[in-house]
Amino acid sequence: MRTIAESAGVDVSTVSRVLNGSPAEVARAASRETADAIRDWAARLDYRPNPHAKSLRTARSNLIGVLVPRLSDLTLATIYEGIEDAAARHGLATFVMNSYDRPAEQRARVELALSRRVDGLILGDAHEDARFADEMAARKVPFVLVSRRAGGHPSATCDDYRGGGLVAEHFLRLGHSRVAVIAGEPFASTGLDRTAGFVDLYRKAGIEVPAVHSAFDTTGGHKAAEELLRRRPHPTAIFAVNDFAAIGALGAVRDAGLRPGEDVAVAGFNDTPLAAELPLPLTSVRSPMREMGTRALELLVSILGGQQPVSERLDPELIVRASTLPRG
Amino acid sequence: MRTIAESAGVDVSTVSRVLNGSPAEVARAASRETADAIRDWAARLDYRPNPHAKSLRTARSNLIGVLVPRLSDLTLATIYEGIEDAAARHGLATFVMNSYDRPAEQRARVELALSRRVDGLILGDAHEDARFADEMAARKVPFVLVSRRAGGHPSATCDDYRGGGLVAEHFLRLGHSRVAVIAGEPFASTGLDRTAGFVDLYRKAGIEVPAVHSAFDTTGGHKAAEELLRRRPHPTAIFAVNDFAAIGALGAVRDAGLRPGEDVAVAGFNDTPLAAELPLPLTSVRSPMREMGTRALELLVSILGGQQPVSERLDPELIVRASTLPRG
Repeated sequence: MRTIAESAGVDVSTVSRVLNGSPAEVARAASRETADAIRDWAARLDYRPNPHAKSLRTARSNLIGVLVPRLSDLTLATIYEGIEDAAARHGLATFVMNSYDRPAEQRARVELALSRRVDGLILGDAHEDARFADEMAARKVPFVLVSRRAGGHPSATCDDYRGGGLVAEHFLRLGHSRVAVIAGEPFASTGLDRTAGFVDLYRKAGIEVPAVHSAFDTTGGHKAAEELLRRRPHPTAIFAVNDFAAIGALGAVRDAGLRPGEDVAVAGFNDTPLAAELPLPLTSVRSPMREMGTRALELLVSILGGQQPVSERLDPELIVRASTLPRG
Repeated sequence: MRTIAESAGVDVSTVSRVLNGSPAEVARAASRETADAIRDWAARLDYRPNPHAKSLRTARSNLIGVLVPRLSDLTLATIYEGIEDAAARHGLATFVMNSYDRPAEQRARVELALSRRVDGLILGDAHEDARFADEMAARKVPFVLVSRRAGGHPSATCDDYRGGGLVAEHFLRLGHSRVAVIAGEPFASTGLDRTAGFVDLYRKAGIEVPAVHSAFDTTGGHKAAEELLRRRPHPTAIFAVNDFAAIGALGAVRDAGLRPGEDVAVAGFNDTPLAAELPLPLTSVRSPMREMGTRALELLVSILGGQQPVSERLDPELIVRASTLPRG
């Protein structure tokens, strides 16, 4: 295959300056006709710029890497859409990878992103111990956390503690004194903060609340609810720290021969689009998922611009539906 | 900052051969002690290999780009997990991007992936007209399609036509003669084939079936079902071509004052983990989502290895639950 330089009949260095240079460099390197001919041949020969050559010049790749626990969690997929939206407005491209909350995967994926010379990272899979985030900070990698906070690192999250409190206030108003929490994974600030916000308000009312950890999906919620429903007397209200776990809990309540919403109230978190459409519509705490992604990207842009980052904690809102309202 | 060469007291070319070369090249370039010292300094100085230098040597980046319509569709997120799993077994890394089924986004994301020198692409967002896939093929970009087929390009899909037929057989056995289809987007083979499989079997039974297009999410399913339920007499059974649209349809049935499962049977497609857990468990056609992803990756690996690709069409299975079974 002929090169662009051969095809256009010019020197290789001229081709490089025209295709990779600033407008001023292009003007110095070639006449307008020659520059046009080079670009034309580049298009015909399916030329792709060498990203490394370009990033050496501009010191920016305009590429942002995103890491999440798993995209099959609708919450994370929606947050990622917010990131992508905001990135497009800033002329940045993004890509995303799953880490499954496994430290070895987190490390491998981040190294991959760095080897592709991303400008910065958005991490949705931080663990409470902040070990990996601390390490990133020590290496001076620009990053922000999203969805979960850890250590004092810059983050865009929901006020999860307040969100848990909103559910507790709702259950207390309905007169529930035997309640329980499906608390999610023990290493995620989302589940920990939502649980703490709920448990603390009940403690103020003089009631200790049992909480069991679980995976963040329907299967995890189902198993945790089974365990809670074996207690005698069973709880009359369950707060699951996300909607998928709550849907699993609804299934477990039904399988135990109890009526969800009547015998056992169930509330979730995030208010995913499913919550309102369920045959028994689900009470849930609305977290601004897309906005969280948008704010995380904006925060990263400000860090890349040399500004001091200020973490964002967005307001949750309780949406009450039939799953916590007895029909009687 | 000192370079690795300065720190280890060797020539730059020695550093390059030790860090980027094959074991034989490393052995020729330096003693074991020197090689160890270079690697040690590389680790301390946070050295990252230049991916371009490496891929020039091996002609492979070991990186696969994946494009999907949107990751907030659980089906696609699950397929991606299958891709990622299989990629890890082959020593390949993957990343994924949303195209939102918009041609301009498809193009921009693919160009981004190619500029990062991926070895190949897996496209989950092919349109029925195959325009973009044809173009990729003309440019000799190695790719396979997943989830949706288009043109004669290599693909790993579910036998969607057969899946639609399974629901039709089920509805016919239950005696439903007034039925309707929520058909998904008009450009996606998944929705088109599932609809055709259903409509063709009903046509053989002498019954014409109305079908309305819709987005593939709960909102799309809700709107489409509202339209279908305004007909007099209303359909007694609705087939939605995916579970999220089916959940939206369940909500619309309820909002119309009808009993889902009793007055109007609703069936979905994919058997996502939610289907079984719903307060009214959803009849759905199980498609092997993870396996589809795995097979797509294997297919791409065989293409990269120079083999002739053979498209895979995986078997669906009908899972009957309460949403199509009257209690009486």
